[in-house]
Amino acid sequence: MKILVPATSANLGPGFDCLGLSLKYFNQTIVEKSKFFSISIHGEGENNIYLKKNNTFVNIFYEIYQRLSGKKDNFRFVFQNNIPLARGMGSSSAVIVGAIACAYELSGFKADKNTILNEALKYENHPDNIAPAALGGFICALTHNEKVLAIKKEVDKDLQAVITIPNVAMNTQKSRAVLAKKINLEDSVFNLCHASFLTACFLEKKYDLLKYASLDKLHQNQRMKLLPELFEVQKLALDNNALMSTLSGSGSSFFTLAYKDDAKKIKEKIKNKFAKFRVELLEFDDEGFKIC
Amino acid sequence: MKILVPATSANLGPGFDCLGLSLKYFNQTIVEKSKFFSISIHGEGENNIYLKKNNTFVNIFYEIYQRLSGKKDNFRFVFQNNIPLARGMGSSSAVIVGAIACAYELSGFKADKNTILNEALKYENHPDNIAPAALGGFICALTHNEKVLAIKKEVDKDLQAVITIPNVAMNTQKSRAVLAKKINLEDSVFNLCHASFLTACFLEKKYDLLKYASLDKLHQNQRMKLLPELFEVQKLALDNNALMSTLSGSGSSFFTLAYKDDAKKIKEKIKNKFAKFRVELLEFDDEGFKIC
Repeated sequence: MKILVPATSANLGPGFDCLGLSLKYFNQTIVEKSKFFSISIHGEGENNIYLKKNNTFVNIFYEIYQRLSGKKDNFRFVFQNNIPLARGMGSSSAVIVGAIACAYELSGFKADKNTILNEALKYENHPDNIAPAALGGFICALTHNEKVLAIKKEVDKDLQAVITIPNVAMNTQKSRAVLAKKINLEDSVFNLCHASFLTACFLEKKYDLLKYASLDKLHQNQRMKLLPELFEVQKLALDNNALMSTLSGSGSSFFTLAYKDDAKKIKEKIKNKFAKFRVELLEFDDEGFKIC
Repeated sequence: MKILVPATSANLGPGFDCLGLSLKYFNQTIVEKSKFFSISIHGEGENNIYLKKNNTFVNIFYEIYQRLSGKKDNFRFVFQNNIPLARGMGSSSAVIVGAIACAYELSGFKADKNTILNEALKYENHPDNIAPAALGGFICALTHNEKVLAIKKEVDKDLQAVITIPNVAMNTQKSRAVLAKKINLEDSVFNLCHASFLTACFLEKKYDLLKYASLDKLHQNQRMKLLPELFEVQKLALDNNALMSTLSGSGSSFFTLAYKDDAKKIKEKIKNKFAKFRVELLEFDDEGFKIC
């Protein structure tokens, strides 16, 4: 079987650990029963021997496959990894969701989206990346009693994402370590207002209000200071008609939303100024993982 | 002219200073040009001499009327105040919004909803009561550069509010004073997730998820401790099929949302247990202030 799992961009400014969306940019994995275990990796991580020896996708897949089927079969894994690693584009969530969905399908269970999502929560305890990876679209998610509750909306077709991918990674743990443990009540209220309003903008398709909604006081600036060029990326985007421009997940990538004509221009401007950074123009995915 | 301004219930659990909705329960005020200034108050506050001598409605009305018209005319004011005072049901916001709207109309300007709302922000710097009082419906609001941005949705007709109105007031300032100044990052994230998800529930009419969304870690419990019977009111409501049950504004009233059949039963149960509390069964307003 073959599975495609989308990249995601989470947080979206104020929506820390809560909001995310799904991008048309996929990891593709083939998993087939085989006499012997084998693994081949193409794209991201192809030169990393560690990823072959101790592969998270493979580990999760076997764990769930053996639990569901009661069997210890061997499989052949072929990875085409397109989602950059440790760049805040949901590569870990794509691996987790993909592995679980494959294990369900190959052990004879239907890979029901909500089942896969709730299994994924055991491996990644924030829903903002796994939920859009599983379901697609813009997602507002909540965890309650170890289940994910998610409300989804498609993103309009005349919008695009400009994803700026720095040449340096940002480790999620390091990126969490820079955050304050205690927040002023006003800043806390600021974020809950902005996250709620940003949710409302996406659900009601009032994209022109996103520039007011997408402000954050909990995490973004502290994290951007780890790579100060990101302030310039953000300013360049917002000065050129971006609807919003926020750190993607815990970084280092930057997510910019714009109408298509503007998105193209923003991409060129960022590319011209930051030659070291990759810049991708992406559509929005509305399906989540797909089994082919 | 005659104006009706609705009661409102704000915060709705996690949506501190951000979310609110409008109830079909109105203050009615008649304002007419007159040779002499006069004021009569019926209902709430009718025995309070202070409210006649230094009346907020009258003060705001004259301030704006004189600014807009350049005139120092006299008016006659007749208040039918139905919204309880200092009970977290938006009585102050109703006064502010009503006074401004009357001043606009009587000085020859149209009382455009957004104009009135932005004027109201100068007198009440949180939008969660003034926005539903002006616009009606469920409101997710944000202030940006001294303007209110509001996204609105009507509440379904098969739902009702059970409003429990204690016999004791809760002063907003006192009710703010009990709050912690510093919040743990996790609690802050908890609230932004829940407020965003609660917004999504109202916008997408997924009312059955409100019981998960309506939890709060910033203010509600601290405030309810000022009147511990409220914990029992909440439990009684939730044990009897309430969709959500939260402190109304900064209290002391309690807001419970339920399908109509359940609402009626919840009202009876609360009434039976708390003889001292008033309990009102209310529909949702979708218009905000109305000039008749």
